[in-house]
Amino acid sequence: MNENNKIEPRLLQGFRDFLPARKMQRDWLIDIVKEVYESFGFQPLETPVLEYADVLLGKYGAEANQLMYRFKDQGDRDVALRYDLTVPFSRVIAQYPELPKPFKRYQVAPVWRGDSPQAGRYREFYQFDADVAGSSSMVTDAEIVCLIYTVMTKLGIKNFVVRLNNRKILNALTQYANIDNDNIGDVLTIIDKLEKIGPENVFCELTKKDGLNLPKENAEKISSFLKIKGSNDEILTQLKKLLGSIEVGTQGINELEEVLFFMETMEVDRVKMIIDTSIARGLTYYTGTVFETQLTDLMEFGSVFSGGRYDTLIGYFTGQDIPAVGASVGVDRLFTAMEKLNLLPESKSTSQVLVTVFPENTQDSLRAAKTIRASGIKAEVYLGDKTKLDAQLKYANKLGIPYVVITFPDKVEKDMYIVRKMSDGSQNEISLTNLASELKNLP
Amino acid sequence: MNENNKIEPRLLQGFRDFLPARKMQRDWLIDIVKEVYESFGFQPLETPVLEYADVLLGKYGAEANQLMYRFKDQGDRDVALRYDLTVPFSRVIAQYPELPKPFKRYQVAPVWRGDSPQAGRYREFYQFDADVAGSSSMVTDAEIVCLIYTVMTKLGIKNFVVRLNNRKILNALTQYANIDNDNIGDVLTIIDKLEKIGPENVFCELTKKDGLNLPKENAEKISSFLKIKGSNDEILTQLKKLLGSIEVGTQGINELEEVLFFMETMEVDRVKMIIDTSIARGLTYYTGTVFETQLTDLMEFGSVFSGGRYDTLIGYFTGQDIPAVGASVGVDRLFTAMEKLNLLPESKSTSQVLVTVFPENTQDSLRAAKTIRASGIKAEVYLGDKTKLDAQLKYANKLGIPYVVITFPDKVEKDMYIVRKMSDGSQNEISLTNLASELKNLP
Repeated sequence: MNENNKIEPRLLQGFRDFLPARKMQRDWLIDIVKEVYESFGFQPLETPVLEYADVLLGKYGAEANQLMYRFKDQGDRDVALRYDLTVPFSRVIAQYPELPKPFKRYQVAPVWRGDSPQAGRYREFYQFDADVAGSSSMVTDAEIVCLIYTVMTKLGIKNFVVRLNNRKILNALTQYANIDNDNIGDVLTIIDKLEKIGPENVFCELTKKDGLNLPKENAEKISSFLKIKGSNDEILTQLKKLLGSIEVGTQGINELEEVLFFMETMEVDRVKMIIDTSIARGLTYYTGTVFETQLTDLMEFGSVFSGGRYDTLIGYFTGQDIPAVGASVGVDRLFTAMEKLNLLPESKSTSQVLVTVFPENTQDSLRAAKTIRASGIKAEVYLGDKTKLDAQLKYANKLGIPYVVITFPDKVEKDMYIVRKMSDGSQNEISLTNLASELKNLP
Repeated sequence: MNENNKIEPRLLQGFRDFLPARKMQRDWLIDIVKEVYESFGFQPLETPVLEYADVLLGKYGAEANQLMYRFKDQGDRDVALRYDLTVPFSRVIAQYPELPKPFKRYQVAPVWRGDSPQAGRYREFYQFDADVAGSSSMVTDAEIVCLIYTVMTKLGIKNFVVRLNNRKILNALTQYANIDNDNIGDVLTIIDKLEKIGPENVFCELTKKDGLNLPKENAEKISSFLKIKGSNDEILTQLKKLLGSIEVGTQGINELEEVLFFMETMEVDRVKMIIDTSIARGLTYYTGTVFETQLTDLMEFGSVFSGGRYDTLIGYFTGQDIPAVGASVGVDRLFTAMEKLNLLPESKSTSQVLVTVFPENTQDSLRAAKTIRASGIKAEVYLGDKTKLDAQLKYANKLGIPYVVITFPDKVEKDMYIVRKMSDGSQNEISLTNLASELKNLP
């Protein structure tokens, strides 16, 4: 291959390789989430990476339609890479009506968004979702939030808060503040920015002439709503005063109360569960409970675990609503955050033992490795072209393999295999028959 | 949602959903392969789904360039969905020269090919690859074939053969038969079809006027080569006679001999390892050892596990060759085959216990489930909207959940929880404190 013709090995911006050490750490995180989800009876599902574009479009809001990886395939079909796991889940529920209800599933898979890459934002990233379709009970919303709580605790994350709200309360607010139907989406987007930009800027954005241009009195109503603060009980009391006369408001407040009640029964730490009336969630498909999770040591990371109830999304496919609620871990954001917080386990080599190889007696090495492996120990033979002992020990060191079995031909002839502990260089001579049991007893 | 506006829930042709039962069975298969690969010291790697098109193009042969899912992204970059796992692996080796060598990695991931869908062929399918870069030793080729043997055995597949060949032998053949450089690819493709179309048709295809139009004496030389049959030893002897005077032929024959020798040392069943001089493998990147694996009870399935040595592929990216060898399980083809052979385990529910929910005392159910879960048992509470006992038992039946804890309010008040065994309907009354330990002791 000519140096001039070579293709530069490179990645698309916003895409990443996971080399073994990081891949193993991320798999550790994913395995813990999986264990928790399964302990609550969620079952695995897998959907394709590519969907017909019309299955995905129009479910997330205008911005999403721009960010989608969408193209014409060889058969001129309009297709797109999946944008999240919730819409494909909804398609599945509609497509297989025979699935038992309630249907509880989890899915861990990459999704694609053509966002401008920035710190902690990627164009290919993993989500890990748990969803329930066919249940309108607030026990289900509470269980989903309890899942979050359990996952975070199992991961060793102590400092986090789950911020809860209900879309129905926000719907009541838009009635209370006389917002036109056309403006509701924009108003919610502005409200959602409260924490980032502060209450004054929210007011400005609502009223500015070249923007929404809301009458001041309407914007003031929204501001008074956003001023609601205090304990969860205090917030509920104030919400009832402000929005209790609006039917959908009362509904939302009752739902929020119920969710909090059931969560307490599940012994979720109530200090970590905070009502935050500014939480709207960007995606348009939410209809009831909505929540976000923030790491209080890394607030700048945004939400690492969020979701809500979407009782009308499946209806896009069935023509008939099926209630549903779910949550999604932003795996890559959480992974990066845990790395910053030093909460990831040390990465380990796959092999516990390296068996050396010398050209004179390669067969002995192969036999020894087979014997060791047969007893359940992960063992590799050295496959490099440089077969000096030094090179082989160096390889074990680089990979962090804790033990090396040295197969000097003259020793092996006398049935002696040298077991070397790499951490201190100590060595033992063992016969082939005892090799596996000896290695099994080592720490 | 209006019935007329609804979007038809559907999949692209050649793409599939894996609903829980099948997803769990496929994960079982993948976990066994993973366990075997790790026991030999292979480490996990993950690469992106999307690559720059020039990274993938021109490595597989002309057909592949047509079948690739290739498009312009939002930034007008020429991108493609990965076509296999070997080329991205080669890119990784070139891109991170700091990786220790030999570098042993496994990767399980979907790949995409716009093939015409037919029985057992999909446009999205999983491959599970193991590869070693930085080793030219035939011990490595033997280890890769030994991996195949170990995986098949662990999966409970008894009737299979691995067909082995070496590209260098085929290169020698093309010298022996005076094939022009331009025709070598086509000749190998025709030879590869031997088993499908028979020796007469191979001869026809080689000589026909509107095709390759080879002189008869050249085609006859190829035919005589393809007639070589017998035990592995007999084949090797005949190959030496026919091609022993050509340098690259001797090289290939020696390599093949060495691979067989090391495999025997690894106690691979020699009856299952067959030299087949017609095996060429379609992909152009192979340079030495090549192999395929067939299920002898399902020959029509084609190869389920194949690969070979590709010593020049990484050079496309580095300008300097790095020797490499690997194998790939066709996960979906193997999965379908195992289903036909009744070798898949029965699918199970995720939950071991369903705790009933009644509106009067939902809290008791939540507490009971939490207690059960805390002892490591997977338990779910019933989340359906119909809370009659019948509906709840029916749900447990549908999902195959073996035990139901019934939480009748009047019983629970007296600290009595009914444990119902679904297989025979037998019931026991247990207190909350004893619930978990009782359930743990059940089969």
